[in-house]
Amino acid sequence: MSYNLLKGKRGIIFGALDENSIAWKTAERAHEEGASFVLTNAPVALRMGTINKLAEQTNSEVIPADATKVEDLENLVEKAQEILGGKIDFVLHSIGMSVNVRKGKHYTDQNYDWTHKGLDISAMSFHKVMQVLHKKEAMNEWGSIVALTYMAAQRVFPDYNDMADNKAYLESVARSFGYFFGKDKKVRVNTISQSPTPTSAGQGVKGFTGFMNYADKMSPLGNATALECADYTITLFSDLTKKVTLQNLFHDGGFSNMGVSQEVIEAMED
Amino acid sequence: MSYNLLKGKRGIIFGALDENSIAWKTAERAHEEGASFVLTNAPVALRMGTINKLAEQTNSEVIPADATKVEDLENLVEKAQEILGGKIDFVLHSIGMSVNVRKGKHYTDQNYDWTHKGLDISAMSFHKVMQVLHKKEAMNEWGSIVALTYMAAQRVFPDYNDMADNKAYLESVARSFGYFFGKDKKVRVNTISQSPTPTSAGQGVKGFTGFMNYADKMSPLGNATALECADYTITLFSDLTKKVTLQNLFHDGGFSNMGVSQEVIEAMED
Amino acid sequence: MSYNLLKGKRGIIFGALDENSIAWKTAERAHEEGASFVLTNAPVALRMGTINKLAEQTNSEVIPADATKVEDLENLVEKAQEILGGKIDFVLHSIGMSVNVRKGKHYTDQNYDWTHKGLDISAMSFHKVMQVLHKKEAMNEWGSIVALTYMAAQRVFPDYNDMADNKAYLESVARSFGYFFGKDKKVRVNTISQSPTPTSAGQGVKGFTGFMNYADKMSPLGNATALECADYTITLFSDLTKKVTLQNLFHDGGFSNMGVSQEVIEAMED
Amino acid sequence: MSYNLLKGKRGIIFGALDENSIAWKTAERAHEEGASFVLTNAPVALRMGTINKLAEQTNSEVIPADATKVEDLENLVEKAQEILGGKIDFVLHSIGMSVNVRKGKHYTDQNYDWTHKGLDISAMSFHKVMQVLHKKEAMNEWGSIVALTYMAAQRVFPDYNDMADNKAYLESVARSFGYFFGKDKKVRVNTISQSPTPTSAGQGVKGFTGFMNYADKMSPLGNATALECADYTITLFSDLTKKVTLQNLFHDGGFSNMGVSQEVIEAMED
Repeated sequence: MSYNLLKGKRGIIFGALDENSIAWKTAERAHEEGASFVLTNAPVALRMGTINKLAEQTNSEVIPADATKVEDLENLVEKAQEILGGKIDFVLHSIGMSVNVRKGKHYTDQNYDWTHKGLDISAMSFHKVMQVLHKKEAMNEWGSIVALTYMAAQRVFPDYNDMADNKAYLESVARSFGYFFGKDKKVRVNTISQSPTPTSAGQGVKGFTGFMNYADKMSPLGNATALECADYTITLFSDLTKKVTLQNLFHDGGFSNMGVSQEVIEAMED
Repeated sequence: MSYNLLKGKRGIIFGALDENSIAWKTAERAHEEGASFVLTNAPVALRMGTINKLAEQTNSEVIPADATKVEDLENLVEKAQEILGGKIDFVLHSIGMSVNVRKGKHYTDQNYDWTHKGLDISAMSFHKVMQVLHKKEAMNEWGSIVALTYMAAQRVFPDYNDMADNKAYLESVARSFGYFFGKDKKVRVNTISQSPTPTSAGQGVKGFTGFMNYADKMSPLGNATALECADYTITLFSDLTKKVTLQNLFHDGGFSNMGVSQEVIEAMED
Repeated sequence: MSYNLLKGKRGIIFGALDENSIAWKTAERAHEEGASFVLTNAPVALRMGTINKLAEQTNSEVIPADATKVEDLENLVEKAQEILGGKIDFVLHSIGMSVNVRKGKHYTDQNYDWTHKGLDISAMSFHKVMQVLHKKEAMNEWGSIVALTYMAAQRVFPDYNDMADNKAYLESVARSFGYFFGKDKKVRVNTISQSPTPTSAGQGVKGFTGFMNYADKMSPLGNATALECADYTITLFSDLTKKVTLQNLFHDGGFSNMGVSQEVIEAMED
Repeated sequence: MSYNLLKGKRGIIFGALDENSIAWKTAERAHEEGASFVLTNAPVALRMGTINKLAEQTNSEVIPADATKVEDLENLVEKAQEILGGKIDFVLHSIGMSVNVRKGKHYTDQNYDWTHKGLDISAMSFHKVMQVLHKKEAMNEWGSIVALTYMAAQRVFPDYNDMADNKAYLESVARSFGYFFGKDKKVRVNTISQSPTPTSAGQGVKGFTGFMNYADKMSPLGNATALECADYTITLFSDLTKKVTLQNLFHDGGFSNMGVSQEVIEAMED
């Protein structure tokens, strides 16, 4: 399936780790739709993952960047424009990590150095990316910036731990920076709030499989996959959504507006 | 601009009155994107408007239907399938009228017969359309149904009168019916909450021009036009948004998530 | 427990059917807090229920009124002021009935005459009550009007049927009329979105018990009872909440902001 | 005005700087309603403000604590229980400060060390307070914890700078921790989203007066004052709101649900 929706557009895609990543699928789909882009990830993630395969497949270069370091982001944004031959049309931020989760700390027993570190990686990095793009005037008019988020930013999912608060911060950054990016450069900024997705990151969350099943049973169209999320992201990068900004867009088979489904009631009666 | 996003898809478009209508623009864009469809409107609207011009231009037929009458809708859905040669992939509901507004009744001095009538036309008609489509099993799997709405459903816009309550009802119907349509037929149902738009209908609202200016000054990307709304609607009819359902999607240049803009503060200081 | 929170205040309480009613508990609590009020209900409800017992107990009069009939409401508002000796300080609207639910019609197979009738009783009646109070200038400044609602207005609860749409309309009326009542008379208007409550009305909803259990397991503080709702309503009638208006206030043990609870995940794993 | 709503209850009140503070007014009202409490603030705020006057007036002790330091909070919670003679029933968190705002950095030109510091003071401190209370089992069952917030957490107010993101984080912490505090100890946690208020902190925000006027013109009941906020907070500390939790409660004269008011349209037409 290809519509040339991104023909001639240039992008930066953060966070493609392996074939399960939403960012990976988005890169594949953006390539099919005619975009050129650079891929980026933190040096440690580059070592763990298989991004070179994706780079080859999509004819794109990989630029290492720790998204918490402004100087890395400056280098990335400069190099990306050189490589792609012009300003940037779209950016995908798909970065998240909680040290507290990784180290098994309960939400009521946080190590606050780790809380700060997780926030820096998962949420403040989004501000840093935009601040660098904004200062360097690196975005084309009517460009589109998207970050991936999760509904734990609005409602309680107990195992999501401090990532819930990080995502709330991230979504607020999208609105706050989106205002200035819109007024100053006509660039739109949105977040996509995706179904629980069995990426390498998602699977790290405790009780993930049980929760996946619950979400699937609750959603009238079932959970959205990584590939479906990539498709949706493409529409937000295209010229067909120019006036959508400051939004948090649920891509979740309807989960977000469900109170309860017949299947969940029945599962609980068993 | 054409991407063949709707190639081979069949649709029903309600509410194209004249060239200012969002439904009119959507029909034009759907045609460009490769869809075939029937146009429909109430007999009285057909007489007032210029829909035949649109029908000719998009190579489509016009089927009169009063959307408050179930038998008219049954006839429409049957004829549409005959004409288009198969089940329906997309439906646009763009219908709204308040008798109280038209007759100059203030919100605190309603004529309740008119309130019921306005609700019937503006909101219950959406239920009726879906009930007929559902009973007749007229939608293809992964089809998409969209209704146009306005943010007065969530927040107060004093001149919007009882249309605010009608739109709240409409958005609820989208969720309520969307659940069953999703579970039973994998059909998605969403509403688009559009900027104030100078359609023939919109212009009937008191103080509309002043309000348009306010909304434009408040929105970081400015008000969205009817054509931009048509573009956005196309993405929701396409196969790229299959897991988006039960949502109310703001297409408004960012207005919905603004508290205040610099320009509004300045305008008020003058 | 009594704090004299409503000392000297005069009210109208709609919808006390029997001892399970939230309106009944609210009347008892308002009496304890020093208010005087009239009770009202539709003639048919008066026959079915035991309201005279409540009237005796709270030293109040019962005025029959069909809340869909403007002339009944006009009579009620006039009589209430005569009996109570002055303008009204608080009003509770606790009225709801779906004919489609009662007659066993599925949401996708509505009888639209019944849909209109249910809307008239459950939601438009709230507009009628306020329109009569507003026209007759029957409310004191800083008075408080509350209607009971349910979260099905925002999210899908499949068995709630067309009451979901009715409640969405009701909540919109609270905002729309609340604006004018606030500007014109400094009266506040809010809705309380209560946990599923085993009232005589609530119990009529299909699968109610299973749903009660689900909601209780989902809510960190458990479901809120009718008496607790009465307590909360008292705070909204008191002088301590003068600037709270146009709000839909969840009184639900936290349900509304839960994505999933540990207990629900566990119940589904069994 | 006093109702004995907090008779016998013990509390901790953070953030009373001077007579303009909402925390100051809340302390006065809590005292009138029969509560005993300790006051606390950071050592630097204690030097700047006039808290000793409040302590004298309300017969309460002041315990210095930097709310970003866990050991200070541990000391505070221990001392408070000793002084008050038992576990805690209510807590008010009214703390916020953005270094970026104070130093005049624009939102698109943040110093990220300052961003972290502002977040630590304004939002993570709320987590720290609750984590200490939770670990020490210092709260009574059915206790109530409230933090003050602002609507910039949901919508864009350009001059609010990174405090918007801090408040979004704070509100998320209220939900996330509120779940565990509810399940484990039956303690409720809510935030109050207050009108712009001319406190010493509020007045530091650029363009504050112009914005106050705008908010007042937009709100059907006008802006809520600090004293009115204190009254509302008292209801949330009382036994009448036991099942309200995880909520963000707007106390703003209706601002939050306004799209536009007649007065704003008129002001913009001038």
